[in-house]
Amino acid sequence: MSHAATPSLPAALAPDALLDRLRWRYAVKKFDPSRKIPAAMWDALEDVLRLSPSSYGLQPWRFVVVQDKALRESLRAASWNQPQITEASHLVVFAGRRGMDVADVERFVDSIVQQRGVTRQAIDGYAKTMTGFVSAPPPHVHLDTWASRQTYIALGFFLEACALLGVDACPMEGIDPAKYDEILGLKAKGYGALCVATAGYRSAEDAYAQAKKVRYPAEHVIERR
Amino acid sequence: MSHAATPSLPAALAPDALLDRLRWRYAVKKFDPSRKIPAAMWDALEDVLRLSPSSYGLQPWRFVVVQDKALRESLRAASWNQPQITEASHLVVFAGRRGMDVADVERFVDSIVQQRGVTRQAIDGYAKTMTGFVSAPPPHVHLDTWASRQTYIALGFFLEACALLGVDACPMEGIDPAKYDEILGLKAKGYGALCVATAGYRSAEDAYAQAKKVRYPAEHVIERR
Repeated sequence: MSHAATPSLPAALAPDALLDRLRWRYAVKKFDPSRKIPAAMWDALEDVLRLSPSSYGLQPWRFVVVQDKALRESLRAASWNQPQITEASHLVVFAGRRGMDVADVERFVDSIVQQRGVTRQAIDGYAKTMTGFVSAPPPHVHLDTWASRQTYIALGFFLEACALLGVDACPMEGIDPAKYDEILGLKAKGYGALCVATAGYRSAEDAYAQAKKVRYPAEHVIERR
Repeated sequence: MSHAATPSLPAALAPDALLDRLRWRYAVKKFDPSRKIPAAMWDALEDVLRLSPSSYGLQPWRFVVVQDKALRESLRAASWNQPQITEASHLVVFAGRRGMDVADVERFVDSIVQQRGVTRQAIDGYAKTMTGFVSAPPPHVHLDTWASRQTYIALGFFLEACALLGVDACPMEGIDPAKYDEILGLKAKGYGALCVATAGYRSAEDAYAQAKKVRYPAEHVIERR
């Protein structure tokens, strides 16, 4: 396949290699608490979070990386005492923006101007579209709901990246979001906790690692028209 | 790094290779309408959708792959006439389960029994947990909202896979979900359209391909505790 238009394209992955890695991943029940994700690897995973796509590029999210032991214990108590919260190498809380307004759009527009070196005027049409969306969203859009959904894109991005990089992970929704907000002071900052991803390395004792991955056959979930 | 516990682990990607590919991706504004995704590549992308993680593994989603030209035209009219809807090689509508109930859990449990070759009794505890979740969700959980969020994990999975496989894509929320539901008959099937991903290959004329990707610096979106 020729990619004349994009000469700097890094090599694509073979489909089977990608699928093999996605089949390798599973929601880890028991991490090896002695194994830590190397700093350079974690930096890359934070970059993956930052590179996640979002509607208009507005990035209506915050990722709280919690390494403090006492804080992890408090969060575990707000997570049905699930051991991964304290035993995994790393913990990220995915939080969505609450009460997004035109100031968010302005901040993003400033960021485009700065990073692309364009004039504010050159992107005025785009800015107006976003301002319109935020100040008068379409009838089916609720901004907090919208921000939550975007944040789940980032969760998907993160989990797939972990699988590709050989890092184990466990996404967890069994948390008390209100307690998380309180413990992490998220509400005051304009964010709300949605879910968590723990990351690290599976324990050799985690029997779930050997369990066959269960997925519906294509005809149950894919409809071709 | 040793992976003694997982001898069949396929080779992991180098972090820089992953990040390069994620930087290569962007929301394509103009596809090359003459270039089609090869069938084997599309099959792999459907497998990626199926392998997406979801809470409890319940897969509360449907992916509608629309290749029919007339149907694509109707959907374009319900999508602010955005050209990608008809010009991209492939179009997937991401729909979330609506009105999930214990029958969904039973279907999933049957699927575990069948695919893992275990007895129903062996997973009765897990089945009860899921039935409890669906019949009496925690106060902060609304099942339709929950299903929508899960479906966005799959969107993230799909978009990252496209980037890795060298397929261009554009996620699109600028659609009229009610019209989509009507055109695709989704409501009657118990699903609701959420968003769309178009996939194919960027046109050499798409100026956006050269635009610098804009992301907030880490300190705006990542909080380390």
